[in-house]
Amino acid sequence: MSAGKLQGKVYLVGAGPGDPGLLTLRARDLLAVADYVFYDALSASELLQWANAKAQIVFVGKSSGRQAFSQREIEALLVRRALEGARVVRLKGGDPLLFGRGGEEGEALAAAGIPFEVVPGVSSALGAPAYAGIPLTHRGIASEVTIATGHEDPMKPEASVDWAALGGLKGTKVILMGTERLAEICQRLLEGGVQEECPVAAIRWGTTGRQEVRECTLREAASGEFSAHSPSVIVVGEVVKLRNRLSWREELP
Amino acid sequence: MSAGKLQGKVYLVGAGPGDPGLLTLRARDLLAVADYVFYDALSASELLQWANAKAQIVFVGKSSGRQAFSQREIEALLVRRALEGARVVRLKGGDPLLFGRGGEEGEALAAAGIPFEVVPGVSSALGAPAYAGIPLTHRGIASEVTIATGHEDPMKPEASVDWAALGGLKGTKVILMGTERLAEICQRLLEGGVQEECPVAAIRWGTTGRQEVRECTLREAASGEFSAHSPSVIVVGEVVKLRNRLSWREELP
Repeated sequence: MSAGKLQGKVYLVGAGPGDPGLLTLRARDLLAVADYVFYDALSASELLQWANAKAQIVFVGKSSGRQAFSQREIEALLVRRALEGARVVRLKGGDPLLFGRGGEEGEALAAAGIPFEVVPGVSSALGAPAYAGIPLTHRGIASEVTIATGHEDPMKPEASVDWAALGGLKGTKVILMGTERLAEICQRLLEGGVQEECPVAAIRWGTTGRQEVRECTLREAASGEFSAHSPSVIVVGEVVKLRNRLSWREELP
Repeated sequence: MSAGKLQGKVYLVGAGPGDPGLLTLRARDLLAVADYVFYDALSASELLQWANAKAQIVFVGKSSGRQAFSQREIEALLVRRALEGARVVRLKGGDPLLFGRGGEEGEALAAAGIPFEVVPGVSSALGAPAYAGIPLTHRGIASEVTIATGHEDPMKPEASVDWAALGGLKGTKVILMGTERLAEICQRLLEGGVQEECPVAAIRWGTTGRQEVRECTLREAASGEFSAHSPSVIVVGEVVKLRNRLSWREELP
């Protein structure tokens, strides 16, 4: 960085899963000094209370009634503002590098010679189950957890997630963006070896005040008898049964 | 909760991966009002700056020269202090419900009728790779990630992680507590189908000022030519190659 030259920077910041209390200290401090905040999760709006009063706040996500920015347009915006010397916070739901496309934004910034930092956040893949009383691992029940995206057609031969192979693992499965294809995904997990009676939980609005948790068996989910609202975090595994004892959130006044 | 009766509560709180800036706002607020703080990660000591000045701070982890508390002893301590009416923060490295044994502590508290809450944290399984410039998922490279513990003997037939089956998945693998058995684990991943040239990263002291990252191939790790310091977060997958472009932390002044 040449001395005296105006040098902007981009911060790829995890916004956490929804509950504003799950934002990190570093994220809050960066919001307080940001010149620009680009955000796309509507659930992040409560976090904007911590943004610098002079910051320009730009919503770049999808909303009904108007066209979302494309990923390439967002990257170009980040680069442009940083080249102008701005401190830019790119606020992303959950964690920026776990299904957050933060890696792509980092690549675009690196290619343009823009300095950047990553601020990890609590992923909804972990936060939502925690608030639902579901530990992703538990002694004697699950020693591994796989987090996968369900946005692709699981029947495509070139699909990047091999759900039947995943069904061969004994651990917990967490599926993000999978509500639309839930029946096909669960069918493939069954074919892979997960038991029909294996419990499934669908967590909507996880960690927020209106969190909803619904449960079924893998057989019910595979048959299409059970449908989950979009978006929901789906958990497949014996750990779901621990909710009977660990659902601390529903007990709160 | 009967009116007027002194009622304690236990908070199972994620301390994050090491960088104090990755603590959540909720965790910091709870530390500030705690009567007791029980912690076991030595890396958490910087976080204790936020603890209530009157709080009793109790280290219950392993350290050289003295016996650690057993898991059952820790659970009994939490119950006892809550029954006395105290606000108890149980601070756990990373996230309490991802290899944190928070589920077990929650069960003990539920069995004793003690109210509790869970405060998720940034897991070292996500935070350390992020600070090393490794996205766990990346468009066109990895659509799933499995996080597994390597503390068991992978050659035992009853081992709860089937590493060869895990080798059959295309996604990223993150191994915690796996440095001692790294060669055997990587051998099984090879048998399962991961390519010999697949890159492996070992991240020590992840997210802290002394973070160290070392890389090798899966073949080198399986042969025992490569050894990782304990504890390290191990990442196996093509995403490790993105470090060339995304290693933002080493660029910092």
